[in-house]
Amino acid sequence: MYRSHTCGELRESHIGQEVTLAGWVQKTRDKGFMIWVDLRDRYGITQLIFDEERTSTALIKKAQGLGREFVIQVKGKVIERESKNDNLFTGGIEILVTELEILNSSLTPPFTIEDQTDGGEDVRMKYRYLDIRRNPVRNNLMFRHKVSMEVRKYLSDQGFIDVETPYLIKSTPEGARDFVVPSRMNAGQFYALPQSPQTFKQLLMVGGMDKYFQLVKCFRDEDLRADRQPEFTQIDCEMAFVEQEDILQVFEGLTRHLLKEVNGIEVKKFPRMTYDEAMCAYGNDKPDIRFGMKFKELNDLTKHRDFKVFNDAELVVGIVIPGGAAYTRKEIDALIDWVKRPQVGALGMVYIRCNDDGTFKSSVDKFYDQDDLYQIANATEAKIGDLICILSGEKNKVRAQLSALRMEVATRMGLRKPDEFAPLWVVDFPLLEWDDETQRYHAMHHPFTSPKPGQLELLDTNPGDVKANAYDLVLNGNEIGGGSIRIHDRRTQEKMFDYLGFTPEQAKAQFGFLMDAFQYGAPPHGGLAFGLDRLVAILGGQETIRDFIAFPKNNAGRDVMIDAPATIDETQLKELSIKLDFKP
Amino acid sequence: MYRSHTCGELRESHIGQEVTLAGWVQKTRDKGFMIWVDLRDRYGITQLIFDEERTSTALIKKAQGLGREFVIQVKGKVIERESKNDNLFTGGIEILVTELEILNSSLTPPFTIEDQTDGGEDVRMKYRYLDIRRNPVRNNLMFRHKVSMEVRKYLSDQGFIDVETPYLIKSTPEGARDFVVPSRMNAGQFYALPQSPQTFKQLLMVGGMDKYFQLVKCFRDEDLRADRQPEFTQIDCEMAFVEQEDILQVFEGLTRHLLKEVNGIEVKKFPRMTYDEAMCAYGNDKPDIRFGMKFKELNDLTKHRDFKVFNDAELVVGIVIPGGAAYTRKEIDALIDWVKRPQVGALGMVYIRCNDDGTFKSSVDKFYDQDDLYQIANATEAKIGDLICILSGEKNKVRAQLSALRMEVATRMGLRKPDEFAPLWVVDFPLLEWDDETQRYHAMHHPFTSPKPGQLELLDTNPGDVKANAYDLVLNGNEIGGGSIRIHDRRTQEKMFDYLGFTPEQAKAQFGFLMDAFQYGAPPHGGLAFGLDRLVAILGGQETIRDFIAFPKNNAGRDVMIDAPATIDETQLKELSIKLDFKP
Repeated sequence: MYRSHTCGELRESHIGQEVTLAGWVQKTRDKGFMIWVDLRDRYGITQLIFDEERTSTALIKKAQGLGREFVIQVKGKVIERESKNDNLFTGGIEILVTELEILNSSLTPPFTIEDQTDGGEDVRMKYRYLDIRRNPVRNNLMFRHKVSMEVRKYLSDQGFIDVETPYLIKSTPEGARDFVVPSRMNAGQFYALPQSPQTFKQLLMVGGMDKYFQLVKCFRDEDLRADRQPEFTQIDCEMAFVEQEDILQVFEGLTRHLLKEVNGIEVKKFPRMTYDEAMCAYGNDKPDIRFGMKFKELNDLTKHRDFKVFNDAELVVGIVIPGGAAYTRKEIDALIDWVKRPQVGALGMVYIRCNDDGTFKSSVDKFYDQDDLYQIANATEAKIGDLICILSGEKNKVRAQLSALRMEVATRMGLRKPDEFAPLWVVDFPLLEWDDETQRYHAMHHPFTSPKPGQLELLDTNPGDVKANAYDLVLNGNEIGGGSIRIHDRRTQEKMFDYLGFTPEQAKAQFGFLMDAFQYGAPPHGGLAFGLDRLVAILGGQETIRDFIAFPKNNAGRDVMIDAPATIDETQLKELSIKLDFKP
Repeated sequence: MYRSHTCGELRESHIGQEVTLAGWVQKTRDKGFMIWVDLRDRYGITQLIFDEERTSTALIKKAQGLGREFVIQVKGKVIERESKNDNLFTGGIEILVTELEILNSSLTPPFTIEDQTDGGEDVRMKYRYLDIRRNPVRNNLMFRHKVSMEVRKYLSDQGFIDVETPYLIKSTPEGARDFVVPSRMNAGQFYALPQSPQTFKQLLMVGGMDKYFQLVKCFRDEDLRADRQPEFTQIDCEMAFVEQEDILQVFEGLTRHLLKEVNGIEVKKFPRMTYDEAMCAYGNDKPDIRFGMKFKELNDLTKHRDFKVFNDAELVVGIVIPGGAAYTRKEIDALIDWVKRPQVGALGMVYIRCNDDGTFKSSVDKFYDQDDLYQIANATEAKIGDLICILSGEKNKVRAQLSALRMEVATRMGLRKPDEFAPLWVVDFPLLEWDDETQRYHAMHHPFTSPKPGQLELLDTNPGDVKANAYDLVLNGNEIGGGSIRIHDRRTQEKMFDYLGFTPEQAKAQFGFLMDAFQYGAPPHGGLAFGLDRLVAILGGQETIRDFIAFPKNNAGRDVMIDAPATIDETQLKELSIKLDFKP
């Protein structure tokens, strides 16, 4: 036993006790006749004191040799502190040290182990084990632990069974790229790491498990965008004998439980919005509804004049920036430049200032008179002092652009408060989504999603209109989870594969086991998966998932601490019956 | 909502209520004028009734069309059952059905969905989703869930933090073979799947996480012996500022908690035994101590005669089979044949019958007189009616052989009771183990295990004698967990790598990050890992781990249900910068 107490434990009630502590040297203050050492562990900081009058010279000398991050063990007596520190739980006491053992020394760390460190991202990732010593990182990991425990507790209490599904499965070309694992015992063959346990959880429903959950690592070999990880954790769930409503109830309950237990916030019934409504009002299927600035479509009010830009546009749509009329010309120009950046891609922006005197000043005064502008202000519910921003163009593009503008303005105005939580269900997603690249429809969710009853027939005539029993849970503008009611009969599943361009042979080779299973009494079922990394980050009031992962990878998919991936031995390659095929 | 109640829920107190149930048709009994259907779900079985007097002809006709494993939904009234079934919780009631909907039909399953099924292992694995519908399999998975939840609860309550470590790490040639994952973004490089999160959990200790746990999948690409899986689950733990005793206390507590919560059994303090004692008394480092039959070494009592077999042997050692004198000559010969099987490998077996009249009859009467035999009987504490079995030869081999015999005899005698639990700590494992194949010492546990204080110096002179702070938890003759106090200073770790045959360059390339970490204030630390699959199986009173895994692989590492591993596309190979290198 290296310690009788932790560094966060001692209080004034312990005064007089002999204790043993162990931990890291956070800092030392040496006044010559007196030395104070802040001793740190996961639980807190306790002040140690060595002084001329009460401490041996040898011990003082030893204490003077202590450097930052040395690991030490001390014995001593808890005494009252002369000048108390109300910022520390242990601030009322200090330890008068009688014995000091250096358990391990430390080189000077490459960055300071402080809440605000001087270390940049790269060096902190390389020395992640030192970064984890910092309160913000450690607290994030402990927060994640708490969320995971609460998720498991809630779902288990609701009768869900945690079933582990396999990691070494089969590659399927549908969806994102798989990571694959060459099989030594089956030369020329490969396992794949799961992008999700989708088919296995459906098989568990066929197997009568009724309610399943798992916190499970999933893998996607995609080119990493900012804040994506090749391995990520999912709260994966599935239920049998349910309709969409049953699933929404359970996972609204889970989310409400987390907000309450983890954040201490009571949230009422979550609002719901259809996908079409969300796209129309926010240009986005994961709207942040902590603030307004809803879209107003203006085709009717803008196409009667000679303004070609609007007249040629599929959609003319605006938002109102409250108080935005006060923006200077320069500020407005900056906003226009912002929407014209390639990342947003608008060709321009029309604005209308709602002046204090009730008149309007717009960038299109040449084309629209005051009454036209009044009509627009009226439709968008803009008030005196507001600024109306209008974009136009191809519907999907202009919605995405205006949505980006809306989020940017809200961020600048401080409307995206990290301690405010606005969950939202978005329902009735389309079954299919058009892919420009391959020039055909893909499953928007995945090929196992069930179309809404009676809509299967639309596939042949209006595929883009077919709605699915698919839903997303959105929190503060982030999709934290999504799911669907699944297909559970072989005929529909075959039809879906056929529609998605699988030959019967391909469908059988890749998903034959699932379609076979559907023939042996598959119950109606559906489910949902939450992205744990993002959920935890948002509940923690942050948006960067990397800060909630102990050992994250960088944007090139590398772990810079252990320096992986790396080359492997020729023998290993030979055993796996593969060889390298590239020119370095 | 497909149901108002589950099939395990209704009791006599519900009589008169209108209910809706959904589930699978377990069986139907059709008497023409009356039809009973057993409706099954995860929660139980409820009897449905259709009869001429109270049910419409159309409905009866529909019920007559129901086959085994059809999925149906029924509405009806809970009524009292005429002949009650005390074997079912729902046996006091039945449902008089008024509406019946067939949610899905079923082909005739390839084996019966009964506790005792007619399906062989192969067909059950191929249709694992049907196998899971059977009570024994489903109960095993639910039992596993319960154990996992209790493990997490206990450790979390003790202040352990669940931290997820990465799955895409770096290959290290030490130990078993790694599964590797080619990196698309880093051509020619590979990730490896972890054999355990060993280095990461040590880094978490360096990072001040203090107490870590994780239920985590681990991967080993080994030739699969019976009941080994290429992917398996570990309860992985690590603690800082601890000595061996602290770790034993915590995990003895965990195991005691599980035995109590899961099995309802209170176990007192676990006995402890050194590795040397275990090898000496049981020939085995994971002895089953539910029964006796300890080894007695007999070199002193057997080497004074002209019996060359014993005189040439490094070790002569015996066990006593209680009541074994009653074995017929044929039975004893069968036992001798059993130890001579290649799997055991003994060259022969000497036996001594302790006759009822106090005399002895042995297979070596030519060499040993009655007094010699008496001395042996005395030393082994054999009683009248017992049989002494003696093996001889090279120490390690003969111990393994006699241990196999001891276990076999105990199994035959019914001494290995599945509902009896005898945990045991085996401590003081050797640091190194001689490997005949490579003709050098290997780390017995792993290269991070710390030698006992002051024993590092023995490495140069008596490497085989160096003991480590390493320990195993044994339950009923199975190693369910093991761990050690780790090295936490760079110098010792370097020395250890050097001793194990790493060049400094190799050590740096593979574990440089860990040795770097040790320079920045690594605390003393240690830990342990339990094999969850085996732990669950043993707590469940069984020994086959496959029965506690939802989707296990077979001995060739294949998932026969999804048919993995499988070939992948040429495009995928190309993207990964690898090609196949074998002749099919």
